Amino acid sequence: MKPINVGLLGIGTVGGGTFTVLSRNEAEITRRAGRPIRIIAVADKNVELARQVAGGKARITDDAFAVVNDPEVDVVVELIGGYGVAKDLVLKAIENGKHVVTANKALLATHGNEIFAAAQKKGVVVAFEAAVAGGIPIIKAVREGLSANRIQWIAGIINGTTNFILSEMRDKGLPFADVLKEAQRLGYAEADPTFDIEGVDAAHKITILSALAFGIPMQFEGAHIEGISKLEADDIKYAEQLGYRIKLLGITRWTSEGVELRVHPTLIPARRLIANVEGAMNAVLVQGDAVGATLHYGKGAGAEPTASAVIADLVDIARVLDADPEHRVPYLAFQPDAVVNTPILPISEVETSYYLRLRVEDKPGVLADITRILADHGISIDAMVQREPDEGEEQTDIIILTHLVREKGVDAAIAKIEALPVVKRKVIRLRLETLG
Amino acid sequence: MKPINVGLLGIGTVGGGTFTVLSRNEAEITRRAGRPIRIIAVADKNVELARQVAGGKARITDDAFAVVNDPEVDVVVELIGGYGVAKDLVLKAIENGKHVVTANKALLATHGNEIFAAAQKKGVVVAFEAAVAGGIPIIKAVREGLSANRIQWIAGIINGTTNFILSEMRDKGLPFADVLKEAQRLGYAEADPTFDIEGVDAAHKITILSALAFGIPMQFEGAHIEGISKLEADDIKYAEQLGYRIKLLGITRWTSEGVELRVHPTLIPARRLIANVEGAMNAVLVQGDAVGATLHYGKGAGAEPTASAVIADLVDIARVLDADPEHRVPYLAFQPDAVVNTPILPISEVETSYYLRLRVEDKPGVLADITRILADHGISIDAMVQREPDEGEEQTDIIILTHLVREKGVDAAIAKIEALPVVKRKVIRLRLETLG
Repeated sequence: MKPINVGLLGIGTVGGGTFTVLSRNEAEITRRAGRPIRIIAVADKNVELARQVAGGKARITDDAFAVVNDPEVDVVVELIGGYGVAKDLVLKAIENGKHVVTANKALLATHGNEIFAAAQKKGVVVAFEAAVAGGIPIIKAVREGLSANRIQWIAGIINGTTNFILSEMRDKGLPFADVLKEAQRLGYAEADPTFDIEGVDAAHKITILSALAFGIPMQFEGAHIEGISKLEADDIKYAEQLGYRIKLLGITRWTSEGVELRVHPTLIPARRLIANVEGAMNAVLVQGDAVGATLHYGKGAGAEPTASAVIADLVDIARVLDADPEHRVPYLAFQPDAVVNTPILPISEVETSYYLRLRVEDKPGVLADITRILADHGISIDAMVQREPDEGEEQTDIIILTHLVREKGVDAAIAKIEALPVVKRKVIRLRLETLG
Repeated sequence: MKPINVGLLGIGTVGGGTFTVLSRNEAEITRRAGRPIRIIAVADKNVELARQVAGGKARITDDAFAVVNDPEVDVVVELIGGYGVAKDLVLKAIENGKHVVTANKALLATHGNEIFAAAQKKGVVVAFEAAVAGGIPIIKAVREGLSANRIQWIAGIINGTTNFILSEMRDKGLPFADVLKEAQRLGYAEADPTFDIEGVDAAHKITILSALAFGIPMQFEGAHIEGISKLEADDIKYAEQLGYRIKLLGITRWTSEGVELRVHPTLIPARRLIANVEGAMNAVLVQGDAVGATLHYGKGAGAEPTASAVIADLVDIARVLDADPEHRVPYLAFQPDAVVNTPILPISEVETSYYLRLRVEDKPGVLADITRILADHGISIDAMVQREPDEGEEQTDIIILTHLVREKGVDAAIAKIEALPVVKRKVIRLRLETLG
């Protein structure tokens, strides 16, 4: 069969990896795809770098639109990132009748609905396995492998930077700021780490999984997002003592009132497999009504793991290149006319369990006051520990784990607790998921 | 689009689960597949049971060939099992131009080459996600999700019965026979458990994964198979002390000399995620050259988890029902004309590490004799422990972990060691994989 001609936009880490893997595994990939996959054009602002990487095998330009408009290009691989020019390029490629492969979670989470509608109209594929959890084929698992299920929830460690930082904080007992510096030195965190550490990157990814799981549009604007920059080493330690690990999870859950969509540090039982995912690794836990829980684990970033996902999409496209658009897997798992606009549940309405840390004066009656407030708000306690104060210390910490309660309920109780004169600082409140 | 009409052969556990899930999730599945999936005919020897399960929604017969020959049936789902009549039915369905979905690993591992060749000739799909690891979409992951990679090896816990037994033996320190009885009582092991406990079931499954991973034909006859029935609780205990768990792994590895294909109890480092897969759960670890390691975890058996895989295949078929056969994922990941007949490596040529337990007289010089024999055979020692003999006891155990060595080398050394008068019983030899 005739080769499939690829135009590559962006020759950074992932673009370079895509070049390397496609050329190293050319024979193997062709045996699978049924036709050669060739990168015939590369666009990058850094023409010199592009020349080095492509080594004379592809036309090089600094004009990405020239690649998108190139009549010889069958598939455009967009690895520029962001929502600016990347969006224009993707839409132009679609308009030109080209298939698109992208690793751009930010673009899909914020403009995916527009992009998929345009692609649907033109009958082209927009594939994005690399946009979530790097090399783990999680898009394919949710969209195809688990298609028999009503997905009940998905919880994922889908940002390697924050998982690396949390692993180090726990292992070494160090504060966030110190570990962040180390992560930057080692290349696990970027110079401006905001998108990672504040949970925005994870929110982009869980937004995409949410759409796939529930047959709803991308609703990034509805996501509740908290990062790990305010997390204290003490809470990691207390959680550990109670049998929990703290992970930054992206969570999406179907409820009869709406879809939960949230990213935040989360206590999870240490005995769960996903609690033992360490360092920069990713893992996604999917709960389906028929299959139960499945866990999908692997490298969530890096040149070749991400290239693995980009090329898997290219092989998929190669296999169906001249197939009629009716005979393809729908972009978002559900047929476009079957997507239902279910709203995202406000975080105040979400029901989960909580970890509360209270700084209190060490004197009689304090615990009674606190437990009364919780009881008044219908909050039942699953576990409670009080730190033995050091000699001469007049304050101590009380840690409380609650059963399921609606967030607005726990917040109301916390406001009352913080008004007690014996409570000496703002209550630390983390969410807890049993993932059972 | 017009519905897809399914004929179901066998209404046991998985058949019942398929009925239940298809009907419970009908709306969701139709939204994904783009057309209704209806079971219109069921064949089972137990017509009464079939009537109960189908509840008037499908034609019932005790003649499976009537379903396979039914012109209204688009897809035959074969859940009879075994290589007897199931093979005739599958081949007849293919001959009749029907797509086939099967959970029958025994059939595919032993007659898959013939079946896929027949299907290729008729241009029909033979899908088998349910044949390996139940609800885990591992066939799809290897065949499509990781298609950019040269797969280096796959190691899987792919038999729930044996993993349940090994978990219980370790947890409770009980011997194999006792735990097997408990497993049978709980329904985790069949009345005749031979296929499970002797590793045959796992060998069927790893044979299928091997073909998918490396683009080779099914070569079940070349598989080396050892079960867990001879495993002693002492070795589980010693392994634990050295930081290892014993799991029944199916392993397939590409080497320049041939493909390794083997099932046996295996020591693996306790810190690996897969070492912590407990009870009847399954997990498959895939090592690709680009992606690194990915782990795929979930329920490997049971009515609804297996039905989840059967129905995922039906959704795949529904999506491509009238597509031209050129535009499909190839049966065994590689295009049929690109399958290469690489031989399976005899177990004597396999290189791995070993755990050796020696029962010896507790007297000076014994260790020197043993280590000299190992050194003479070029076997280097990674770790060694000697059990402190009880008071008055004249014999003790020496445990040795070796570095990588070819199996015939270790066997030659063991023969020499067993000839020493101070060695009191046959050496216990288990294989060890670091999975690093």
